[in-house]
Amino acid sequence: MLLDNINDPKDLKKLSVTELDTLAAEIRQFLIEKLSSTGGHLAPNLGVVELTLVLHYLFDSPTDKFIFDVGHQSYVHKILTGRRDRFDTLRKYKGLCGFVKRSESEHDVWEAGHSSTSLSAAMGMALARDLKGETNKVVAIIGDGALTGGMALEALNHIGHEKKNLMVILNDNEMSIAPNVGALHHYLGKIRTDRHYQKAKEELNSLLNKIPAIGGKIAKTAERFKDSLKYLLVSGILFEQFGLTYFGPVDGHDIPALMEVIKQASQVEGPVLVHVVTIKGKGYSPAEADSFKWHGITPYKIESGQVVKAVGPPMYTDVFADALMELAEKDERIIAITPAMPGGSGLMKFAGRFPKRMIDVGIAEQHAATMSAALAMEGMKPVYAVYSTFLQRAYDQVVHDICRQNLNVVFAIDRAGFVGADGETHHGVYDIPFLRHVPNLVLMMPKDENELRNMMKTAIDYNDGPIAVRYPRTNGLGVPMDAEMTPIPIGSWEVLRSGEQVAIIAIGPMISVAEEAADLLKREGINPRIINARFIKPLDEAMLRSLADDGMQIIVLEEGSELGGLGSAVMEFYSQEQIFGVNVRIIGVPDVFVEHGSVKEQRAETGLTAERVAADAKAMMPRRTRMATGQ
Amino acid sequence: MLLDNINDPKDLKKLSVTELDTLAAEIRQFLIEKLSSTGGHLAPNLGVVELTLVLHYLFDSPTDKFIFDVGHQSYVHKILTGRRDRFDTLRKYKGLCGFVKRSESEHDVWEAGHSSTSLSAAMGMALARDLKGETNKVVAIIGDGALTGGMALEALNHIGHEKKNLMVILNDNEMSIAPNVGALHHYLGKIRTDRHYQKAKEELNSLLNKIPAIGGKIAKTAERFKDSLKYLLVSGILFEQFGLTYFGPVDGHDIPALMEVIKQASQVEGPVLVHVVTIKGKGYSPAEADSFKWHGITPYKIESGQVVKAVGPPMYTDVFADALMELAEKDERIIAITPAMPGGSGLMKFAGRFPKRMIDVGIAEQHAATMSAALAMEGMKPVYAVYSTFLQRAYDQVVHDICRQNLNVVFAIDRAGFVGADGETHHGVYDIPFLRHVPNLVLMMPKDENELRNMMKTAIDYNDGPIAVRYPRTNGLGVPMDAEMTPIPIGSWEVLRSGEQVAIIAIGPMISVAEEAADLLKREGINPRIINARFIKPLDEAMLRSLADDGMQIIVLEEGSELGGLGSAVMEFYSQEQIFGVNVRIIGVPDVFVEHGSVKEQRAETGLTAERVAADAKAMMPRRTRMATGQ
Repeated sequence: MLLDNINDPKDLKKLSVTELDTLAAEIRQFLIEKLSSTGGHLAPNLGVVELTLVLHYLFDSPTDKFIFDVGHQSYVHKILTGRRDRFDTLRKYKGLCGFVKRSESEHDVWEAGHSSTSLSAAMGMALARDLKGETNKVVAIIGDGALTGGMALEALNHIGHEKKNLMVILNDNEMSIAPNVGALHHYLGKIRTDRHYQKAKEELNSLLNKIPAIGGKIAKTAERFKDSLKYLLVSGILFEQFGLTYFGPVDGHDIPALMEVIKQASQVEGPVLVHVVTIKGKGYSPAEADSFKWHGITPYKIESGQVVKAVGPPMYTDVFADALMELAEKDERIIAITPAMPGGSGLMKFAGRFPKRMIDVGIAEQHAATMSAALAMEGMKPVYAVYSTFLQRAYDQVVHDICRQNLNVVFAIDRAGFVGADGETHHGVYDIPFLRHVPNLVLMMPKDENELRNMMKTAIDYNDGPIAVRYPRTNGLGVPMDAEMTPIPIGSWEVLRSGEQVAIIAIGPMISVAEEAADLLKREGINPRIINARFIKPLDEAMLRSLADDGMQIIVLEEGSELGGLGSAVMEFYSQEQIFGVNVRIIGVPDVFVEHGSVKEQRAETGLTAERVAADAKAMMPRRTRMATGQ
Repeated sequence: MLLDNINDPKDLKKLSVTELDTLAAEIRQFLIEKLSSTGGHLAPNLGVVELTLVLHYLFDSPTDKFIFDVGHQSYVHKILTGRRDRFDTLRKYKGLCGFVKRSESEHDVWEAGHSSTSLSAAMGMALARDLKGETNKVVAIIGDGALTGGMALEALNHIGHEKKNLMVILNDNEMSIAPNVGALHHYLGKIRTDRHYQKAKEELNSLLNKIPAIGGKIAKTAERFKDSLKYLLVSGILFEQFGLTYFGPVDGHDIPALMEVIKQASQVEGPVLVHVVTIKGKGYSPAEADSFKWHGITPYKIESGQVVKAVGPPMYTDVFADALMELAEKDERIIAITPAMPGGSGLMKFAGRFPKRMIDVGIAEQHAATMSAALAMEGMKPVYAVYSTFLQRAYDQVVHDICRQNLNVVFAIDRAGFVGADGETHHGVYDIPFLRHVPNLVLMMPKDENELRNMMKTAIDYNDGPIAVRYPRTNGLGVPMDAEMTPIPIGSWEVLRSGEQVAIIAIGPMISVAEEAADLLKREGINPRIINARFIKPLDEAMLRSLADDGMQIIVLEEGSELGGLGSAVMEFYSQEQIFGVNVRIIGVPDVFVEHGSVKEQRAETGLTAERVAADAKAMMPRRTRMATGQ
């Protein structure tokens, strides 16, 4: 195996171009085998095998900087930079990260997990390089989907203006995570498929070359436009308009062609864009056939491509989508909005049933939010389905456009809490602190999948402003489902277990943890009250008062940042009401970024466990209680 | 005066086109006169007089929807929709808002204050219209500066894809608030100035018409490209590539021409873009000569254009900029970044001194943040100067790119706290709650302008991650300035006035309020301790412990949201440390959006006053103290 001897990009440079082809095949085999047991982003990585090989062959990492947009397509890069032997630990706790990770290798120079940051990063690196008088190359590798993200377009605009030397590799596979949308996509499609376009350009050029024979005036005109035409009529026009010199399109699986074009492009002064056409899932037929499904995949059988299916109660995601469909049958105002997550949001089925009432805007979280505001302004009921971590991109739009104008937008915030293997870039642990202080917003979290349905009904019935429901990326609890959805009174909490002395106020999956803790405490003679704080905003003020009246110690348990979260809300309430002397203990995610692993490991690492809750509750007991239970 | 009879857009329609010209002149006179005493966005509004007249003449507001991007150019619209007589109250407390305001008029259909939201709003309104089977027009009016904002580009991409009927009016005045930057701007410049472009298009068309005479094959090619050429060779190409039909450029001060082009454009199916070239400040020579200065202006003398200057100590903004220049002389790593606010940020002088070390990226807050991250990654010391309210746009980039990677980016957050006349879209009252929960960030606020200098030194010297300093849009206090800047130990607070029983923890301008409150309390025999909590994160834990040890009642006073702010941080600390029984009262901005007025009025409305602080402090005193003071 050639691969056995590649432990550094330097080793690659000893190979011939033909050997690179062999190596590409070996890497594909390696990826297909390894990921069949770990899972991971198979299709994107199969698409960039040759591209990554060529980049490392032509340039000198880490002096030359490779910036992978999103970073989930960096597996080949990891293989080539000495991490081959760690692939069994991919996306596992303390194992190889599924994204670019600076602590893993000097070759990892820019981390991401959210899309569309690579062009800004490249611009910053090119600026710094020039200020320092250095000469290294800066190469950003970005997909056609990520290019529709607003910040990538902001960066493109700035890159065209500053004219620094940098290379943008547009990895065009016709897909972001979902089939791509948007005008830019049509434009790329036109380039890719219309070979006439290319041909015609040549013909027209040759026509223009013949023109001088016709007459002076026309010739002059034609001459003036020759260069423009060359660019205008071919593919790169949009990018050329932005000020980047365009190369391509080139077949991303043809190593000599790639080599040639990238070499050429690297000799041009100023910013260049190399348009590389790749096939997502290339070389593994199940992935090629359905690269959408195989974008990020759980373990599978290599022969059949059969995915090892998790069994269990329905996912919250699916419960949300089914509830929304049910509601949409009766309420024509409902329109679903997703920023490039039709699959992840569960809305595919909805789109099938209501094609005109499901809008996928592409990777455009900001636009999606503000468009939702306008839809609400006109009497529609937009449901903006988005992951907690990606809603961060639309924070300003939530504040300025939706909540400030107090519009009836429904937020379906998926992946709230820890997300497991995707790790620190993807956790949904900040949405409570970044939403809670925004006036007019109602924020809910269900204790189980049946309550999620009721919250969807609550949200759709609510017409006094924005309302959000957040839910985890896990399966539901398997509880029985009510036939009818029933709205829940806004701001009402629920006592799940009566008890004395200490109350555990918990949300979502933390309720199970609270219940386990209660079982542990019972053995010690402590019988905590458990409360489902299903409204994070507004709070159930009557219940909070009664806790104070009952002289309860309070623990707030939340799988979100413990700075500015539900626990702080509870303390703020008592402070505002000048109810002093209520002891509140917050158990949440501490003030650090939590790395990849399983959700269980992430909870253990951060102390979101029954044992810890029980210990903290015990510590809060008045001494006489501790005495009474024999301590 | 024609203007006297215009109380509704309907009145306008009775006028002839010639009379519209007269009316335009009257409106200009009206604006120049009124704003000379109120101040306001003069230059932008003078630029859109004819455009606004034509829109109201041709369309039927409010059935047809006008969406003004940012909304500070809506004064003419307000004049035409029955609000002429309220202009003396412009931007004053309970007076006419300086932006579009739905509560003022049915003709105000979309509010904004932040840039680049209009295209998303238009898309949402067009979608809703079609779903409801209605037929009204939707018109977005957006400046060339706002078009570089990422979300506008996201929306443009989506608009081109969906092909809904809607009109984008590109109000191209070569300026956003500052001289515009970016490739898009160059592109617009080319269109505007290069008349050859237009001419050549005609010549080439006529050439193509003659071609059939030459030969079959070429004719076929030419034919195939005739339509493309028409668009490709003229100005609208970028927009056409995005899928919008392009009209223009048209002189925005020529009413018949505007009328003609907009009429034509409104008959086209699908999205159209009308490129209108206007002169900011048109018709008032001081504003035409320096539209940058006259963008938003304080009261002035009409004859001379002399601005009524405020006197007083230096603005925090200028102190920041001067300190940064001083530091940059000695530290070559320093590079200043601003998203289209070279003037507002005070960085103009810096740019003059260090032209290569000041980057204005245009309206692109997200790109600016992530680019700063990359600059820091490469060893530079980027200083991202931005208003608190606009930093909201870069929340995700702050979390995901800067703080997660723990990079040495310095944030200079201007306009923290209430901003006065700009009102609810512009207050800087959320940055503490949206930044405080982000790991790795240090967050400071100075008590005066001398401390701001020391904080700038602190920030530049700090090399352990991101660090932010926030400061108000006001003048400093006029304190003596140290010759040398001295760094402040991270996380150290300062006791400004010793005292017993009650401590007032305050930040920034609230310290003066605390001192006034202390003076009031003194009369009642209460002597509060006053603490300058100059580090909002990390807290001064030793000092907080000592307050608990001293049995102090605590008031936290902050001009920021009282949800998730400094007060919550203080309570969280005691909770984490299991120090129970410390009474904390938070006095901050309540959970509502606060309208325009003076900062003083805004503080009074929200209870950020010495009287209230004193009363709250008194109420927290143990009964024996109150008894002792005669109550």
